[in-house]
Amino acid sequence: MIDEHEYGYFTEADSADVVVARNRNAKDERLKQVMEVITRKLHEAVKEIEPTQEEWFAAIMFLTQTGQICNDWRQEYILLSDVLGVSMLVDAINNRKPSGASESTVLGPFHVADAPELPMGSNICLDQKGEPMFVHGRILDTESKPIAGAKIDVWQANDEGFYDVQQQGIQPEFNLRGVFRTDADGRYWFRGVKPKYYPIPDDGPVGKLLGALGRHPYRPAHLHYIVEAEGFDPLTTHIFDPDDPYINSDAVFGVKESLLAEFRKVEDAEAAAKVGIEAPFYDVEFDFVLSRKKG
Amino acid sequence: MIDEHEYGYFTEADSADVVVARNRNAKDERLKQVMEVITRKLHEAVKEIEPTQEEWFAAIMFLTQTGQICNDWRQEYILLSDVLGVSMLVDAINNRKPSGASESTVLGPFHVADAPELPMGSNICLDQKGEPMFVHGRILDTESKPIAGAKIDVWQANDEGFYDVQQQGIQPEFNLRGVFRTDADGRYWFRGVKPKYYPIPDDGPVGKLLGALGRHPYRPAHLHYIVEAEGFDPLTTHIFDPDDPYINSDAVFGVKESLLAEFRKVEDAEAAAKVGIEAPFYDVEFDFVLSRKKG
Repeated sequence: MIDEHEYGYFTEADSADVVVARNRNAKDERLKQVMEVITRKLHEAVKEIEPTQEEWFAAIMFLTQTGQICNDWRQEYILLSDVLGVSMLVDAINNRKPSGASESTVLGPFHVADAPELPMGSNICLDQKGEPMFVHGRILDTESKPIAGAKIDVWQANDEGFYDVQQQGIQPEFNLRGVFRTDADGRYWFRGVKPKYYPIPDDGPVGKLLGALGRHPYRPAHLHYIVEAEGFDPLTTHIFDPDDPYINSDAVFGVKESLLAEFRKVEDAEAAAKVGIEAPFYDVEFDFVLSRKKG
Repeated sequence: MIDEHEYGYFTEADSADVVVARNRNAKDERLKQVMEVITRKLHEAVKEIEPTQEEWFAAIMFLTQTGQICNDWRQEYILLSDVLGVSMLVDAINNRKPSGASESTVLGPFHVADAPELPMGSNICLDQKGEPMFVHGRILDTESKPIAGAKIDVWQANDEGFYDVQQQGIQPEFNLRGVFRTDADGRYWFRGVKPKYYPIPDDGPVGKLLGALGRHPYRPAHLHYIVEAEGFDPLTTHIFDPDDPYINSDAVFGVKESLLAEFRKVEDAEAAAKVGIEAPFYDVEFDFVLSRKKG
């Protein structure tokens, strides 16, 4: 005979306590703790909202449809987490950096694991579309000393806002992706194309929600980086174009002040020739600072 | 040019404010309010839990799978709402009753709209399986005056814990369902079978979660009622068997103290014959009190 009577039956006033008490036999302490917080916050939200039965059912159907649109290449729940700022919050919590280290931002869904390692200076834009861009900078430790042998994995959307994996058969394979390794001076440089803002997938439940909330689905133009070096915490981040029309309203809240780069337009043909590009081009200089692994 | 710079970029400290500020152009004030509460409580929960990236992804996958197992006859998100006490909380909020009126509980997934209207006293158990039960009582207003012409829609699981709709081809159609109407004295009576506890569907993500939390999936034995009468608030509720082994641990928190009935075993053959049943049988007497519609 199971007796949980010490907690009494469900009442509006005690609702969360009654539900939480049921989990007292959970073997996994972490799961128990997580479900206690979720239950309490969920009940607080319901009590504050006081949904009608119809509103409750609309929420049930939204959650159901958000799950049902997911497939091997589409993850609508990650999108929901993104547009509610939850993905960025989880990223922030897991990447608290010591003062001076570069800040992280979300990985996003378009990273591929097997991009080719390229000689420094390569042009990752394989189809020559768009406005040329020269990207360069240094990988440093928090004492501003260069990190040699750092691995830099970069990827970006093209001049129309699409990644290669979204346009298979249209863009060349591994277009606008590359892996580079720094020399003794910690420098990196490569050529690409000025990226453009693009919408997150907005034809599903999350897109409809954004629309109903008066929000647009765009992410401002950015370049993705994963920077790794032996003995340092890996850094997953972006750099952003501060002149992008959506720089202050990224649909997924990925922008941080410290990740704004300068996309400097260079008209000088000689400067362009020096880096193997035709003028005009965009010069983007950005240094990354890695934090040393603890312990 | 969209400028939301007044709220600044996303930071861990300001996370919910930054997200909520984005909804300021929402046309639907209610949606805006609901999403503000949800966003704030969600961020509070994440900050309290501090999930790892792996835990966050496990949550994403749980939500996805909960949506994907839903189909025309299975609603796993309602089940999740049920086992977290949210369904009962929404029911409580929407059915606050004046003192003296009968309390409501969840509708559940097994009500059918077109059950037959039967003469008072009918036996709703069409296959004669299980221990006979005689159910009777009165429909009253809050001044204890009988309500004539009240419609009573009842349904129940059989002696093995299954509803007819779960056992099509095994149980007769409309087995253990009926609609009755009270006479001038507000009385109702019908014959059925002693119900048994049964599990909610536990082979999906919600069942796995219950298991991980050390919780069983059972609902204690009960009879469902919807009582309606002109000029009164409709009442959707259950009555429960207080001797059921799960009476203090209903998986969906539906039990309320005021909804415990007495299932009195009667051995007397004469008493049984009087109500058209063979002894032994269970006598269940329960009155319902409806609240008068406001306005």
